[in-house]
Amino acid sequence: MVRKSSVRLFVNETLAEGASLELTRDAAHYVSNVMRLGVGDPIVLFNGRDGEWQGTIRRATRKGCTVGLLGSLRSQPVELDVWIAAALVKRARMDFLVEKATELGVTRIVPVTTRRTVVSRANVNRLTLRATEAAEQCGRLSVPEVMEVQELELFLASLDAGSQVLWCDESGDSPAVNAVLARLSKTDHSGPWILLTGPEGGFDQSERKLIGGHAKVTGIDLGRHVLRSETAATVALGIFQAWMAGS
Amino acid sequence: MVRKSSVRLFVNETLAEGASLELTRDAAHYVSNVMRLGVGDPIVLFNGRDGEWQGTIRRATRKGCTVGLLGSLRSQPVELDVWIAAALVKRARMDFLVEKATELGVTRIVPVTTRRTVVSRANVNRLTLRATEAAEQCGRLSVPEVMEVQELELFLASLDAGSQVLWCDESGDSPAVNAVLARLSKTDHSGPWILLTGPEGGFDQSERKLIGGHAKVTGIDLGRHVLRSETAATVALGIFQAWMAGS
Repeated sequence: MVRKSSVRLFVNETLAEGASLELTRDAAHYVSNVMRLGVGDPIVLFNGRDGEWQGTIRRATRKGCTVGLLGSLRSQPVELDVWIAAALVKRARMDFLVEKATELGVTRIVPVTTRRTVVSRANVNRLTLRATEAAEQCGRLSVPEVMEVQELELFLASLDAGSQVLWCDESGDSPAVNAVLARLSKTDHSGPWILLTGPEGGFDQSERKLIGGHAKVTGIDLGRHVLRSETAATVALGIFQAWMAGS
Repeated sequence: MVRKSSVRLFVNETLAEGASLELTRDAAHYVSNVMRLGVGDPIVLFNGRDGEWQGTIRRATRKGCTVGLLGSLRSQPVELDVWIAAALVKRARMDFLVEKATELGVTRIVPVTTRRTVVSRANVNRLTLRATEAAEQCGRLSVPEVMEVQELELFLASLDAGSQVLWCDESGDSPAVNAVLARLSKTDHSGPWILLTGPEGGFDQSERKLIGGHAKVTGIDLGRHVLRSETAATVALGIFQAWMAGS
């Protein structure tokens, strides 16, 4: 089935042949008032579990919007488990980081606090909304999970034995990212790939010791340029995914 | 000499031992009123030609600010000639693209218009200011040149014979970026490296034909994710620079 609409929405409901579902108030507002869709117009839905579905608007009133499902467009793909663990940065830059990480296919976003982090809290609901919007925009069939803020030490201590952490080390002490990836196996660990990025100003000495000494961590150097946190996260994820896509 | 200050400014004046210079009105305002620096405080200057210099504030009044130069911190590096030619996107995303491209070391930014470009004009002064701020922030010793908006066809027609264009092709028809880079020489052409990214919605068929048929263009695939224009530019530049930095 050809996709008929550029309006894509993430919903929580189960998606199945012949199903009909009621959009949330916010989604109904977006569909009716922002995108100006009405009865009979096409709309695409996904929920992170049942693939992508072609729907059509059956009812659109001031009180809400009902979508009927016509058929499946794509089945739910198996996703590589890739996390970004990023030192919290200021609001606009964190929003950006979440958007880019979503486009680049991460399954989980972990905001971490470090000694040089100047932001200590994150609005998980707002970041989840940003991730959802980014997923709707970029054609993904899932929304990454945004975790509560964690302290770096506790986060590192909590990692599964099967995890593989790639630490974006801005000190110049780690080998070039491509050299590191060239000798890593894409498949010989059971847990998630985790890309770890520091705050503006970098990790401090004690944190560097903690990270560098962790059994699951491999340092990577992203080049001679000093990158902002959200740039480093975006670039590292892009390099990682290009490597994964390679033969 | 150890760098004493995190305030870095791009200036137009020649920088040399013992020189003294007057900051522009905007720069003086930033230094005095925003960063709250006063007489005797350190400041770092660069101009894209004479390297990086440690300065100190000699005079700060309501009318202006004078900086005396103490000594050279770094000499001007030779930069790889890398351009980003990017289809214009909306203001906030174009600002972002310019910031990230600057962090990632481009020497020139060319905004191009295409059939699906919804924005037709760019404020070159504003984009240059964004590039300057990004260069000041990220430790670069130069500011990329932001060009006037050009039509895609004219831009392609104007390229030097020595240019090498890497076209971020989102259609899936081009080989994976890492496979392409693996067989490219880093040194066998005389002109600039140019990364070309399309608008939201992509290049249209006739543009794809034009680009794909150009002798200097090589298509690259950035992976299975659908990336926004500014994400594609950031990721492509990150991958390119990591490849360049490799042995």
